[in-house]
Amino acid sequence: RRGEMAKSTQLINNEVFQAFATYAAIVLVKMMLMSLITAYFRITRKAFANPEDTASLGKGENAKKYLRTDPDVERARRGHLNDLENIVPFFGIGLLYALSGPELSSALLHFRIFTGARILHTFAYLVPLPQPSRGLSWGVGYAVTFSMAYSVLKTAWLL
Amino acid sequence: RRGEMAKSTQLINNEVFQAFATYAAIVLVKMMLMSLITAYFRITRKAFANPEDTASLGKGENAKKYLRTDPDVERARRGHLNDLENIVPFFGIGLLYALSGPELSSALLHFRIFTGARILHTFAYLVPLPQPSRGLSWGVGYAVTFSMAYSVLKTAWLL
Amino acid sequence: RRGEMAKSTQLINNEVFQAFATYAAIVLVKMMLMSLITAYFRITRKAFANPEDTASLGKGENAKKYLRTDPDVERARRGHLNDLENIVPFFGIGLLYALSGPELSSALLHFRIFTGARILHTFAYLVPLPQPSRGLSWGVGYAVTFSMAYSVLKTAWLL
Repeated sequence: RRGEMAKSTQLINNEVFQAFATYAAIVLVKMMLMSLITAYFRITRKAFANPEDTASLGKGENAKKYLRTDPDVERARRGHLNDLENIVPFFGIGLLYALSGPELSSALLHFRIFTGARILHTFAYLVPLPQPSRGLSWGVGYAVTFSMAYSVLKTAWLL
Repeated sequence: RRGEMAKSTQLINNEVFQAFATYAAIVLVKMMLMSLITAYFRITRKAFANPEDTASLGKGENAKKYLRTDPDVERARRGHLNDLENIVPFFGIGLLYALSGPELSSALLHFRIFTGARILHTFAYLVPLPQPSRGLSWGVGYAVTFSMAYSVLKTAWLL
Repeated sequence: RRGEMAKSTQLINNEVFQAFATYAAIVLVKMMLMSLITAYFRITRKAFANPEDTASLGKGENAKKYLRTDPDVERARRGHLNDLENIVPFFGIGLLYALSGPELSSALLHFRIFTGARILHTFAYLVPLPQPSRGLSWGVGYAVTFSMAYSVLKTAWLL
C-alpha cells in the first residue's frame, strides 16, 4: 500500500511539478469561474440561448423574448473563449515544460507571470479597462507560453 | 528494449492512473463525437458556415441560401462548446489529481460521477430534456472538478 | 541537485514521450498562431467585437461602425475553434497514449500523420481550398486520435 502510494506521488513530489500543479489548477479554476459569470449575466439580464431555459419565465411568446443576446453575456463568453484559447495551450505546453527538467526558479517565473497576466486579462475584459490593458495582459501570457514551447522543443526535439 | 517499455508503462501501471486514463479517454471521445453530431445536422438541415461547403448543392445564389444557421446545428455546437469548457478542465485537473496520490476508491468515485454527469448533460442538451436536467448534470460535473482541484491544491501547493 | 534534475527529466528521456512532446508542442503552437491570424484580420478589415478596441479609430458613431463581423475574421475564428475541438483531444488522448507504452514507430506514425493533417487543415480552411480538402484533412486527424483512444482503452481499461 505505502509503496504504491509513494510511486503514485513520485511526480508530484518533484518541486517543479508541484509548482506547475499549483498554478495550473489556479488558472483552470479561474477559467471555470467564467461559466458562473456567464450564468450570472444570463439570469440577471434575462438573456438565454435555449428555449427550455426560459420556461420558468413565462409561456409562449412571453418566454420567447428572453431568447436573445446581451452585451454583458457576450462579453463574459468572449472572455471564456479567450481563456480556452490561451489557458489550454498553457496547460499542455506547461506540462511538457515541467517534465523537461527546467530550473525551479525559471519555471516559477514562467508560471507566476502567466497566472498574473491571465487574472489581469479577465479584469481588463470584464470591467472593461481601456486598451491596451487587455491586449498587453493577453500578450504577456502568450509570450510566456511561447517561451516554454521553445524550451520544450529545444529539450525534446525528436521528429 | 523490455526495460525501456517497462519504464514507459510505469505510470499506466498505477491503478489510479489507469482509471484516469480510462475515464478521460471516454469523455474526450464523447466530446469528439459532438463534431459528428454537428456535421449530421449541418448535412440533414442543409445549414453551412463556409461557401466552399455548399458548392456541391448548387451554384451562385442557389448555393448561397444554405449559408445559414439552424437551431439544431446551433444546439449541437453549444453542447460541444460546453464540453470544451468542462471536459478540458476535468482532463487537466484530473491528471494532476491522479498524480497527487489519491485513494483509488476516492479517485474512481470522482471519475465515475463526472463521466456519468457529462453523458447525461449531452442527452439533456440534445433531446432537449426540460430544465433543471441540463443544469443539474452540468453542476455535478462542475462540483466534481472543483473537488479534485481542491485536492490538488492541498497536496501540491507551492506558489 | 543533479539527482533531482535526473528524476524530473525521467519522462522526457523516454523516446516515445520525447516524440509526443515535440509534436504536441508543434500543434499547440500552430493552434496559438490562429490568435495572431484573427488579430491580423480584425486590424486590416477593421472589424472588432469590443467597443474599447475601436477607441483609437474614432469617437462615438464613428467608432461604432467598426463593431461588426467580417467574413475573413469569422473564417479564422472558425479555424481556431476547430483546432480547439481537435488538437485539445489529441493532446489529452495522445499524452495517455504516449504513457501507455506503444512502440516508437507506431507512436511516430500517429503523431506525424496528425500533425501533417492539421497543418493541411489550416491551409484548406484559410485559403480556402475547395472541398473535400478541409473535410479530408479533418477526418484524417480525427481518425488518428480515435486510433490512439482505442489503444489507450485497450491498455488502461479500469472502470
